[in-house]
Amino acid sequence: MRRGLKLISIGLADEYDLSLRAVEEARSCDRLYVELYTTKLSTSKERLEAILGRSLREAYRRDLEGERPRILEEASQSLIGLLIGGDCLTATTHISLLLEARRRGLPTWVIHGSSILTAIAETGLSLYKFGKVVTLPLPERGPPDTVLEALEGNLSLGLHTLILLDLDAERGRWLSIGEGIRLLLNADRPDIFNDETPLIGVARLGWRNPLIRGGRASELLNIDFGEPPQALIVPGRLHFVEEEGLRLLANLPGEALKGWRPRSETELLVERYMKSCRRVIEKLESSPLREEAQRILDYASRYLSDAEYYANEGRWPTALAAVSYCEGLLDALRLLGLAEFEW
Amino acid sequence: MRRGLKLISIGLADEYDLSLRAVEEARSCDRLYVELYTTKLSTSKERLEAILGRSLREAYRRDLEGERPRILEEASQSLIGLLIGGDCLTATTHISLLLEARRRGLPTWVIHGSSILTAIAETGLSLYKFGKVVTLPLPERGPPDTVLEALEGNLSLGLHTLILLDLDAERGRWLSIGEGIRLLLNADRPDIFNDETPLIGVARLGWRNPLIRGGRASELLNIDFGEPPQALIVPGRLHFVEEEGLRLLANLPGEALKGWRPRSETELLVERYMKSCRRVIEKLESSPLREEAQRILDYASRYLSDAEYYANEGRWPTALAAVSYCEGLLDALRLLGLAEFEW
Repeated sequence: MRRGLKLISIGLADEYDLSLRAVEEARSCDRLYVELYTTKLSTSKERLEAILGRSLREAYRRDLEGERPRILEEASQSLIGLLIGGDCLTATTHISLLLEARRRGLPTWVIHGSSILTAIAETGLSLYKFGKVVTLPLPERGPPDTVLEALEGNLSLGLHTLILLDLDAERGRWLSIGEGIRLLLNADRPDIFNDETPLIGVARLGWRNPLIRGGRASELLNIDFGEPPQALIVPGRLHFVEEEGLRLLANLPGEALKGWRPRSETELLVERYMKSCRRVIEKLESSPLREEAQRILDYASRYLSDAEYYANEGRWPTALAAVSYCEGLLDALRLLGLAEFEW
Repeated sequence: MRRGLKLISIGLADEYDLSLRAVEEARSCDRLYVELYTTKLSTSKERLEAILGRSLREAYRRDLEGERPRILEEASQSLIGLLIGGDCLTATTHISLLLEARRRGLPTWVIHGSSILTAIAETGLSLYKFGKVVTLPLPERGPPDTVLEALEGNLSLGLHTLILLDLDAERGRWLSIGEGIRLLLNADRPDIFNDETPLIGVARLGWRNPLIRGGRASELLNIDFGEPPQALIVPGRLHFVEEEGLRLLANLPGEALKGWRPRSETELLVERYMKSCRRVIEKLESSPLREEAQRILDYASRYLSDAEYYANEGRWPTALAAVSYCEGLLDALRLLGLAEFEW
């Protein structure tokens, strides 16, 4: 008996993004479904039907999700194909469906297609330097906390962050780039995201009418990117080829990158502490101290030098440990009345 | 005059991964090239020609790279198509070519296709939780330093790492999963990669005969994954759905994940320092101390509590600063002869 589930990627935009393999595999199925609620495509059930020469049924959340997805009941009796926008295992929903099929011992096939996750290379940014990908939820679905957390982590490693903008295809609701930026600004974490943050907005990548535009957050805020799907990218540390790429491909003015140097929380702490320790040590070096206090001061000064050395090497955690230890030594002098200074 | 450059993705495996759009766009060009040296495909110039019904010329490094790529000279006179394996802007070479075309004011088009960078979702791992992607070079091309660095960074954020294995298509040389593991073990950084590290090996994803297998490094070392392309994945922190995915889709025994908890250097330092500070404070609390030393001890003890609090919250840099400061206070007591202990 022919049975099982074929997950078939449609690709980025429309029916012309189907691969020859996807067309062939779809035609070989007993019954075909198309899922149109997790992404926004530039096609329709009818246009896909015309290309495949086969009739399609639309699959809804209730057919694919939950403990006993209806589509798997059918797949245990016949060969079912499910067409999915983008590359088909990008959304958790479809991985879960694949796993449930495997649990039931059903044969499965995965046919890949083009995806926003690699199409973003059109911005000029290297795909090898992206960190965690994250979705900015519609405000009614929750706060932007996970975005800020992912952004902080990626920036601390100098990596780029792709921020997908949530959409509720069933209700025709979607976040625009401008709304997304506003939500992030309103989160009030200027240390991670503020008016000056350089961004690249991308709309309809792989479609007939894509738009890629870079600028500071405050500049992109008021640009109309048109129809969805849209997404935002926060660049991390940039190679000069990437900088030129952004200029040529995303119209990002070089000025928008001025002063942009993603740094980790550890790095910022190290710089702040090194500055205050250096100031205190310089002050104490010119004051008369008792012999045992002088010894501690010399010791503290050596640890500050170590911290500076490790900071130069980019070994931030070790630098932070050294400079904080130096601070403890100096503060002990102050608390014991062996030296006078203020932080 | 028709002129310009179309970058046309072939996709993951062979000519059937071409999208309908790729076929159409290729057929519309005046002349077609295919680049077969940056990736390994399961096809040939002849098979691509048969599907496209057009003759193809093979493009070599000298045609695409350098200051004046030959292909762009042609693209300024006619409409040139360049077929590229995978999704076409994954390699730096092709981004550079696109940029050089733009600098010359040539019209350009990008047609996307399937890619290893999203096909890895077949392992059951979420694409949203991958960090920086990195290529492990052939030994004659350099040491695995960049891989270890990327791995360390990704693990510190709990992210998965895709390690592509280098290949020299022109010489028919490629790294296997076993060789890759051996190179990483020989780098002698057991804190980042060792015999016990859980891994997922993937070979020929999207091909007719893919293989996905998980296990500890020592176990995968001797599995023959067959023909290239192959790649390695080091998982980061795993969601339980991902754990089940790895079990069902990658045959990863649950046992292989026992004790696996990616941690950052900062986290490890904090734990080590908290332990030694706690031991010293407990010892001093039971010994007689002069009043001013007792005051410093109480102060140090409060900072240790702070460090423990921040560690619980996952705020590792702040925890590190607090515990190192505590260490400095305590050490000052020792150096001044106000307390006796050993670290």
